[in-house]
Amino acid sequence: MTRPPHPLNPSMGATERPPVMEARRWIAEAHFPPERPLLNVSQAAPVDPPPENMRRAIADIVINDPEAHLYGPVLGLPELRAEVAARWSQSYGAQIGPENVAITSGCNQAFSAVMASLAGAGDEVILPSPWYFNHKMWLDMAGVTTLPLQCGPGLVPRAEDAKALITPRTKAIVLVTPNNPTGAEYPAETLDAFFALAKAHGLALIVDETYREFDSRSGAPHRLFGNADWDQALVHLYSFSKAYRLTGHRVGAAVASPQRLDEIEKFLDTVAICPNQIGQRAALWGMRNLGNWLAGERAEILDRRAAIEEGFGQLKGWTLLGCGAYFAYVQHPFDEDADVLAQRLVKDAGVLCLPGTMFTPDGDPAGKRQLRIAFANVDRAGIGQLFDRLAAVKNN
Amino acid sequence: MTRPPHPLNPSMGATERPPVMEARRWIAEAHFPPERPLLNVSQAAPVDPPPENMRRAIADIVINDPEAHLYGPVLGLPELRAEVAARWSQSYGAQIGPENVAITSGCNQAFSAVMASLAGAGDEVILPSPWYFNHKMWLDMAGVTTLPLQCGPGLVPRAEDAKALITPRTKAIVLVTPNNPTGAEYPAETLDAFFALAKAHGLALIVDETYREFDSRSGAPHRLFGNADWDQALVHLYSFSKAYRLTGHRVGAAVASPQRLDEIEKFLDTVAICPNQIGQRAALWGMRNLGNWLAGERAEILDRRAAIEEGFGQLKGWTLLGCGAYFAYVQHPFDEDADVLAQRLVKDAGVLCLPGTMFTPDGDPAGKRQLRIAFANVDRAGIGQLFDRLAAVKNN
Repeated sequence: MTRPPHPLNPSMGATERPPVMEARRWIAEAHFPPERPLLNVSQAAPVDPPPENMRRAIADIVINDPEAHLYGPVLGLPELRAEVAARWSQSYGAQIGPENVAITSGCNQAFSAVMASLAGAGDEVILPSPWYFNHKMWLDMAGVTTLPLQCGPGLVPRAEDAKALITPRTKAIVLVTPNNPTGAEYPAETLDAFFALAKAHGLALIVDETYREFDSRSGAPHRLFGNADWDQALVHLYSFSKAYRLTGHRVGAAVASPQRLDEIEKFLDTVAICPNQIGQRAALWGMRNLGNWLAGERAEILDRRAAIEEGFGQLKGWTLLGCGAYFAYVQHPFDEDADVLAQRLVKDAGVLCLPGTMFTPDGDPAGKRQLRIAFANVDRAGIGQLFDRLAAVKNN
Repeated sequence: MTRPPHPLNPSMGATERPPVMEARRWIAEAHFPPERPLLNVSQAAPVDPPPENMRRAIADIVINDPEAHLYGPVLGLPELRAEVAARWSQSYGAQIGPENVAITSGCNQAFSAVMASLAGAGDEVILPSPWYFNHKMWLDMAGVTTLPLQCGPGLVPRAEDAKALITPRTKAIVLVTPNNPTGAEYPAETLDAFFALAKAHGLALIVDETYREFDSRSGAPHRLFGNADWDQALVHLYSFSKAYRLTGHRVGAAVASPQRLDEIEKFLDTVAICPNQIGQRAALWGMRNLGNWLAGERAEILDRRAAIEEGFGQLKGWTLLGCGAYFAYVQHPFDEDADVLAQRLVKDAGVLCLPGTMFTPDGDPAGKRQLRIAFANVDRAGIGQLFDRLAAVKNN
């Protein structure tokens, strides 16, 4: 252990280091023979660049659009805000204007900006557990207390359980659907109930739809934007990273009331000044030109999901707890904590996945039995290999 | 006034809106006749894109480097970290390794990440006044109390004055040199004294050198990195935006101890995941290929600075308080507060500059007499016009 730096903000000191860095250390220390290369199912991100036509379009912008190299508005490129507003209005059957849309440097930044506008040190926020670890990290470093909400059947949280957690310091409830890490697609009724709860208690309801494009359901996954007063409680988050393979460009969005965006703008100005301009133009080009391509990507992910569901149905001792978008969330059959098992799987099976302990409260017994398998980057042949390797793992 | 959103983090609610937005509203509401177009000296940023050879290099990366579209390490591109470390070691005559360098999504983000690692709600930070408004905004929204440090002659702050402000809750002192908004280039002795003060009191000393490339002095502007224990107190900030006209790409850097960077990494992971990859590669290309070009840029800025100093020397009633990098900081001769005057100058003179009230504590009488003139984007002809227009302004 190295000595912590001085001075140190105690909230920052108490925040866990990024789990993904930890997992990278495991593979850095391991050896993978050529006949059994690493099968990496730890990453919730595409591993290929955007299609060539998009790369050519971006290159053209780089050379010919001077504005793409200069500062832009804090809340993002007006054309991109308008495009999101128009498409969301259509797909959710709602009235969303450009004044409701902020573009951010990725969806993580959308979350932190929104949360900074809602809750400070000493406040509380409800997060269903298992949670997305970066959400927990932001709350920890801001001195905000996380209230873990245990999920019900199908890893779907229940509004009535959340209600029991609310105190006068509670400011918001965060839902991620399709969920990271569980893959669960929350029913529209669940979202309705949470919206009603949030409104009744004067809380914000944050709905992170980063994986929206890979939802298996057709049509709008919820009807919250149909409420005339949606912007009194709802804040919606989105990412362009997954849909258009733009992870390295850092472009996301938040949809909220103009009054909320006025507050978020202060944070974004101070932390980013503006989202990078090339990435914003790439996202806009993608929305306008890659609709069919994206439909193909979705079909492929849904096919891989079917292979995962089939495979776990036959894998002895394992239970598939949730599956959707990029993720399978599973219960393992071994007499060993998931964080220890995950490191053993790297060595014994050449498989890197993340343990449930990274997504759950410290000491939570459920998390110790669970693993997240991010299958989106593995084709059907690779998924076959994954199950061969998992089937061969013995109790330690 | 619109109603504030609910719930609202009170620290965020108490944070001022971005001053630059306010200034944009002034010009949006004004009319500029063709014979007297707007002379915009409000922006601390280049208004032209990077040179064509750089734009072509970026376009080539977009098409041929798949990694440039994907997530990268939280603390930045290893080659860029190494390049910064090697060049800083040389220019400051010091030993700085890649493990001391974090790349961030712009220098504002470097500041907020560093500050989040140092100070939380209830802590205090010393900022010389006038200050860079985004620094003040971050502290306000984090619930950190700003201790304003009045500057001495030449708008240079004094360590002995800072010493008198320190309490047990004080965590850091922030210096910006060359300064925004005043242009003041702090003497090496000043930085030595602040470093000694910070060390003696266990504080961090943050030195923001965003405008380093436009310092009029040759050689290293300070010798802090020469201290064997520099990383016990010093945190250095840098921006690639000004040097290479990459404002829209959002690339900056922080140089600190590896232990400090471990903490900063948590913030950057949660708020950005990684700096955008295209911008990082552009910055690297710039460092490796635009040395001579940058020297020419610097010579041009220094020539404009000379024209500004000459002009204010002859402008009746006005006093040039500070001048350097992109900025002149001046005292105006009118019986009117600077924020009112700045709006009148838009209408009466077609000149947009920012009032000292944006850079000073509320109610500070000095700030009401002051204006910031960001002259870097105006050539000698434009500077001539600026003085003609200012000379024609009458008392209201």
